[in-house]
Amino acid sequence: MGGDFGPRVTVTAACDALRRHPQLEIVLVGQADAINSHLRRQRGDHLQRLHLIHADDVVPMDEKPSQALRKRQHTSMSKALELVAEGRAQACISAGNTGALMAMSRAVLGMLPCIERPAITTAIPTLKGHSYMLDLGANVDCSAEQLLQFAIMGSVMVEAIEQSERPAIGLLNVGSEQHKGNDQVREASRLIGAHAGLNFIGYLEGDDLFNGRADVIVCDGFVGNIALKSCEGLSKLLVRRVQGSFRRNLYRRLVALLATPILRDLKAQLDPGRLNGASLLGLQGVVIKSHGGANRNYFGYAIDVALEEARMNVPARIRDRVRDEMARCGEQTDPQPF
Amino acid sequence: MGGDFGPRVTVTAACDALRRHPQLEIVLVGQADAINSHLRRQRGDHLQRLHLIHADDVVPMDEKPSQALRKRQHTSMSKALELVAEGRAQACISAGNTGALMAMSRAVLGMLPCIERPAITTAIPTLKGHSYMLDLGANVDCSAEQLLQFAIMGSVMVEAIEQSERPAIGLLNVGSEQHKGNDQVREASRLIGAHAGLNFIGYLEGDDLFNGRADVIVCDGFVGNIALKSCEGLSKLLVRRVQGSFRRNLYRRLVALLATPILRDLKAQLDPGRLNGASLLGLQGVVIKSHGGANRNYFGYAIDVALEEARMNVPARIRDRVRDEMARCGEQTDPQPF
Repeated sequence: MGGDFGPRVTVTAACDALRRHPQLEIVLVGQADAINSHLRRQRGDHLQRLHLIHADDVVPMDEKPSQALRKRQHTSMSKALELVAEGRAQACISAGNTGALMAMSRAVLGMLPCIERPAITTAIPTLKGHSYMLDLGANVDCSAEQLLQFAIMGSVMVEAIEQSERPAIGLLNVGSEQHKGNDQVREASRLIGAHAGLNFIGYLEGDDLFNGRADVIVCDGFVGNIALKSCEGLSKLLVRRVQGSFRRNLYRRLVALLATPILRDLKAQLDPGRLNGASLLGLQGVVIKSHGGANRNYFGYAIDVALEEARMNVPARIRDRVRDEMARCGEQTDPQPF
Repeated sequence: MGGDFGPRVTVTAACDALRRHPQLEIVLVGQADAINSHLRRQRGDHLQRLHLIHADDVVPMDEKPSQALRKRQHTSMSKALELVAEGRAQACISAGNTGALMAMSRAVLGMLPCIERPAITTAIPTLKGHSYMLDLGANVDCSAEQLLQFAIMGSVMVEAIEQSERPAIGLLNVGSEQHKGNDQVREASRLIGAHAGLNFIGYLEGDDLFNGRADVIVCDGFVGNIALKSCEGLSKLLVRRVQGSFRRNLYRRLVALLATPILRDLKAQLDPGRLNGASLLGLQGVVIKSHGGANRNYFGYAIDVALEEARMNVPARIRDRVRDEMARCGEQTDPQPF
């Protein structure tokens, strides 16, 4: 039900995904009438793998997480998460209210042992491929211990999804020298560095974000959110400047015509929607947040991210890895059933 | 003496600036031998407006600010700042160690009344022109009061340099809703909003950075530094992608040839060096920091920024405005001679 376009996007994207993945089953959770009105136009065998669970309520996009949590029982968001909690679904995908999704995921699924709060991560493009950056806004204030947890979770994510061994972990800071940064970052550097199981390469500066030096980029959610959104803002400015530059006179318009395939290809490459689907890590289950403004294709990418994380069982890998790392460093662990 | 290239860049850029500005006088401060070896090739009347003050020592680029401060007497950096303190120069420009420049500026020039620490600001390009963002890394932890000081200083900067009235001030945050963000940001929002003399438009998100919604973008130095450097990193990635895209096959190479003037023009537009010259605001004098990697042209832009700020007497304007704002809000001020 979530996002700027509601079931119009999510229902059609779900049908596309069923066609792409012959083993996939999807449960749509939301107001049956709204969903059915978009299902009516769909045809094909793949619809046998599509199920519907009705939910009366929807979490509004601007509702405070605490409010959403109080009256959560009948919302599509909580019902979808309950399917994961009960093992009837392997992942939950939402384009809805991020804060509410975070809070409800914690309440319904619970956190993994030794992880305090969920972190949001997503793949970002680099000169060498992809890196994973976390946190992207779930936690505005982070302790050094939380930054360590992010390092472990990001590391597991890269190992599982990118099939890479000993991914390089960098800690975002305002300089590369040891004395730079605030107290949390300096203490986190010490903590992450003390874990021999983690391949810590030290501090990164902002301009290392896209050069692929690190596979995992660790930062608090305040900085991560603003850094990544700033880059979105810059992309928009650049697209406008490129367009303007190719329109200034007749010669330039002709060249633009000849360059159409190149420019189209560039636009596709730079398309932020291609990386849609942010993961909420640290929960006892896979939860994926799609951008609210995602279109049918972009929402499909988020479904594919969910599929991949469920397939690799990322939450179980994180649980095991956190236990191992904590044991190795002699820290107390309190393993809970998972 | 500072920067990656030392006097080779600074001496030649100084000579260029003297040619550009017939009223300008420049004092080069540093090791006389090194400077003279680059002056030898220069010819022309403008050299009469060039002066040299010898300094035995240079602050190394990697020295800690506290160390630089202890043994500062004979360094080119402190001698240059002393010229400003004594009124023999109206501005100091350095491409050297940023932390040392900050610490020495405070020690030699002193802060303006009611300003706790210097803030670094620079113009950033937007869809509509320029905005000024501060702080860009001088302060890794900022109180709400400091963020208010940044708002006032940025506002004065835009009024003086961009000749704009009642510049719009935005506060960088992870969301636009009132409850978003950390304690300092929420408290700063209250403080800035309480000053009727400031045109506060509320929270900005990262993707507002380049759209020109605000003329002044206020943030702490940790976030500001990482956000802006992340954008530099993205620019580098994009330039590489564009180049790659125009080289993939013969057709594309031919189109690239036809597009040469457009691509050159775009590259010039996107050139981060064009905005070289960051201002250290809040000091009793004009201090400009050039990027360490600046070439002759880029260092010249930093000289022009210094000239403009000295011409508009930005420090005195900040002093007056801070006094007015504090008086208007009934806060205690302790005016010092300036």
